[in-house]
Amino acid sequence: MTTHEAFLSPTPRTTVIRGRQRARAERSALLDVLRSARLCHLGVIVENVPRVLPTVFGVDPDGPDRAGTLYLHGSVASRSLIEAPEQDICVTVTVVDGLVLARSAFHHSMNYRSAVVVGRPRRVEDEEERIRALDAIVDQVVPGRSSHLRAHTRKELAATSVLALPLYEASVKARAGGPVDDDSDIAAGGVWAGVVPIGESVGSAERADDVEPHLVEPDHVVALSRS
Amino acid sequence: MTTHEAFLSPTPRTTVIRGRQRARAERSALLDVLRSARLCHLGVIVENVPRVLPTVFGVDPDGPDRAGTLYLHGSVASRSLIEAPEQDICVTVTVVDGLVLARSAFHHSMNYRSAVVVGRPRRVEDEEERIRALDAIVDQVVPGRSSHLRAHTRKELAATSVLALPLYEASVKARAGGPVDDDSDIAAGGVWAGVVPIGESVGSAERADDVEPHLVEPDHVVALSRS
Repeated sequence: MTTHEAFLSPTPRTTVIRGRQRARAERSALLDVLRSARLCHLGVIVENVPRVLPTVFGVDPDGPDRAGTLYLHGSVASRSLIEAPEQDICVTVTVVDGLVLARSAFHHSMNYRSAVVVGRPRRVEDEEERIRALDAIVDQVVPGRSSHLRAHTRKELAATSVLALPLYEASVKARAGGPVDDDSDIAAGGVWAGVVPIGESVGSAERADDVEPHLVEPDHVVALSRS
Repeated sequence: MTTHEAFLSPTPRTTVIRGRQRARAERSALLDVLRSARLCHLGVIVENVPRVLPTVFGVDPDGPDRAGTLYLHGSVASRSLIEAPEQDICVTVTVVDGLVLARSAFHHSMNYRSAVVVGRPRRVEDEEERIRALDAIVDQVVPGRSSHLRAHTRKELAATSVLALPLYEASVKARAGGPVDDDSDIAAGGVWAGVVPIGESVGSAERADDVEPHLVEPDHVVALSRS
C-alpha cells in the first residue's frame, strides 16, 4: 500500500491566489469533493485553445500515482484523450451547496466545494489496472454497480483509452455560510438576504422496457435516491 | 435589435467529432442549455496549462456580439480574467438529466445537455453594458433578483472585470433515453437496466440572522424551489 501525504503540496500553479481564505490544503477535503460528484470537467489544449469537456471519472486514493490516482476514460478515437498524455491537463470537480443572496449584487455568492487537479496524465496500459479504473468510474456514478456487471470484453477494452492523473498537484476551495454584507446595506434594511440550499435530486428509477418483469430494483439503485 | 443566425456556425474547433449523432446545431438548443444552468466551467491557458475554473455567467441572446453574448465577471485581480482577453477561451455548461444504467459497464452513460462556447473574449468597458452584464449574472443564478437590489457603486464597478464572449462559435451535445445494450446482454438477462433521473433540489431558504423579522421571502426566492 502506498502511503500518501496527509496534505496536498501545491505548486505555484495550484496555489490559490484569489480567495486564499477559501483554500483548504487538507487531502481529506480533496477526497471529500471528489466523493461528492459524478462528473468532472477536463481541460486539454487542442490547437492552442483550451477545450473544456464534461466527463465521468474514478478515484483510487491508494492508486499507484503520487498522492493517489484519478482515472479518466474515453474512446481510443477521442482527440482530447489522444492529445492529453503529451501535455499537462486540468481536471476540475465542482459541487454547489447553496445560493448566497446578499443585499448587494456585489456580495452575491455560492456555497460550493471545488477541486482542481493539474498534471501530466499517464496512459494506463496494464490490463488489471485498466479494469480497476473502469470499475471505479462506473462506481463513482452509481456506487456498487460494477460488481453486478459481466466482465469487460477484450473488444471493449481495446476500444477504450484510460488515463491516470496523480492527485498530488491539487487545490481545493470551499465556501459555506451566509451572506457577508456591507454594514451600510444591513443598516439600510429592506432586502431579504440568506442562503438557498442546493443539492441533487434523484428521481424514481425508470426500468428499461426490455428488462425481465421479475427483476426488482437492486439495492444499489434504490440507494441512489436515499443518498 | 441585432438579428442572429438561427443556426450555430461551427468552425472545425467546435465541430463535434465524437458522438456526432448527439450534436445539435440549433441555436435554440444552445440557449436551452444556457438557461438550465447556474454555473459554467471556464477554460483559460495560464503558463501553458489549461486551467478550468467554475464560475457564474450571464446571457444576453440579443447582446452586441455575433449570435449574442455570454458574460463572465471576476475580480480585477483575477489572473484568469486578466489573461483571458489575450487568448481564445472556452466556456462549457453542463446539465445532467439522468444516469443511464446498462447491462455492461461499456454502455453505461448519462443523459445530459452540454454547450461549449469558444472565442476571443472582449473586455467590457462601457458602463451601461457592464451593469447589464452584472445584472444578467445575478439573474442567471436567481431569476428576478437584480431588480430588488440597490445600484452598483462606483467602487464595486471599479473592482470588477467583465468579459463578453460571442455565442457564435459553439457546439451543443445532448443525450436522452434509455440504455442501448448489446443484443447478447439483453438475451442473457439477469441485470436490471434503466434510467435514474437526476435534477437539482432546492431546499428551504434560510434567512440571514440580521434580516428584519417582518421581511417575508420575496417571490423570486419562493420561485426557486418551484422551478
